[in-house]
Amino acid sequence: MTSRNIQLIVEYDGTGYSGWQEQPGKETIQETLEQSLSHLAGHPVELLVAGRTDAGVHALGQTANFHTQSILPVQRLRKVINQLLPHGIRVVRMKEVPATFHATYHAAAKLYRYIIRNHQDYTVFDRHFYHHYRSPLNVAAMQKAAHELEGTHDFSAFRGILGRKANPSRTLLKVRVYKKGKDVILDYLGKSFLHQMVRILSGTLLYAGIGKITPKDIRDILKSKDRQKAGPTLPPTGLFLVKVFYPRVFPPVRNRWAKVDE
Amino acid sequence: MTSRNIQLIVEYDGTGYSGWQEQPGKETIQETLEQSLSHLAGHPVELLVAGRTDAGVHALGQTANFHTQSILPVQRLRKVINQLLPHGIRVVRMKEVPATFHATYHAAAKLYRYIIRNHQDYTVFDRHFYHHYRSPLNVAAMQKAAHELEGTHDFSAFRGILGRKANPSRTLLKVRVYKKGKDVILDYLGKSFLHQMVRILSGTLLYAGIGKITPKDIRDILKSKDRQKAGPTLPPTGLFLVKVFYPRVFPPVRNRWAKVDE
Repeated sequence: MTSRNIQLIVEYDGTGYSGWQEQPGKETIQETLEQSLSHLAGHPVELLVAGRTDAGVHALGQTANFHTQSILPVQRLRKVINQLLPHGIRVVRMKEVPATFHATYHAAAKLYRYIIRNHQDYTVFDRHFYHHYRSPLNVAAMQKAAHELEGTHDFSAFRGILGRKANPSRTLLKVRVYKKGKDVILDYLGKSFLHQMVRILSGTLLYAGIGKITPKDIRDILKSKDRQKAGPTLPPTGLFLVKVFYPRVFPPVRNRWAKVDE
Repeated sequence: MTSRNIQLIVEYDGTGYSGWQEQPGKETIQETLEQSLSHLAGHPVELLVAGRTDAGVHALGQTANFHTQSILPVQRLRKVINQLLPHGIRVVRMKEVPATFHATYHAAAKLYRYIIRNHQDYTVFDRHFYHHYRSPLNVAAMQKAAHELEGTHDFSAFRGILGRKANPSRTLLKVRVYKKGKDVILDYLGKSFLHQMVRILSGTLLYAGIGKITPKDIRDILKSKDRQKAGPTLPPTGLFLVKVFYPRVFPPVRNRWAKVDE
């Protein structure tokens, strides 16, 4: 029996969901998607995913894949799945990929964005999609601090309580801080991230923006490997998984179902 | 004891609320605001309001007033109330008004806006704030139909199930239909409105936009006084109370607590 490997690009409003990963008794993005996909495919579908986002975190370009015996054309599948899904989850693109493609293992880099609404003024209508901070931030100081975070470091000081056993070394390819209208936007490009790493990095850059730490302190915080030295974990509302980057070829993965640390 | 009369301009995301008006066992905007205001004022506060919006309907400029013995400055009161309120409700402005001002009775006109997202493309992030209609609408036909609705008419064909006893005559001062980016926007300026009138008017204008009725049919629908002849009641997600207009003087209202039909 022929099996196809299908890749999905998914957009979602994480508000009200207990994150991506399936958990008994909780409403998750993975479970919601798998239920609809299984219904359409006529067999249980298991999704492999690039970024296991936490509760309340959003995605513009989450990437996942699944293997199916269904012969439904992907364009048709995408239309019907979007009619089945709740309005907060949408499959933006769907395409057939080589059998070896694995959304988790082959992810070469992920772009996460944290949005801080840095203005006295705000409206109630988009409150689930930013973190509100009223006092003006020093963007230049944040940019300097961001620069200190780039490269390969032991990010023990910037990890949440989960996954403490994993190797804490991570590579930040690029950290960009810029103003856009009323917002200060923090873009993080990295191969992979530790648990809550982006939200703690953002809390630390916010501290740099209000002068609670200097850009140079970043090096000491990294060296300390002490979570207490870094800034606060900002709320999930401001966080988006924007895009996942893949190489052009997909070497076979030995154990397709194996878990990775993040 | 001196009493002050305080006017509030309120913005809210109606999603998840059972509308403005207090109802036993339901979470309403009125009850949420009154609880916080009573807490601050130190005595039970009752709000008088311009538009009793339905469940799921939003407001940019809802207007209400209340009488209080509290001597807290209004700027202070506004700051503190916004800290107490849930993030979906915000007091945009607060000011002291003459003792005779009554938010319901003195409202000279209200501007309601209905937003139709008229595009194949959409995102999940603002889905609570429009009605999605994919096929292109004929805006010129909608504008002609809108023109037929202006003036004083018996709007029996355009009212929901509540308040059937009220006089069905209403005056639409202006109905404007225009494109803005991906949206078709319907603006209704009127002295007052019947129950669900704006949503039924919008469903009827949508029917004009897809050729299900012609602009001239509007006159027959009005004459028929038959709800079945008008278009569907569009969902509350797309509806906003934008602004309430008041005259410069406020003649005394005999019974301040009397109810009006809408």
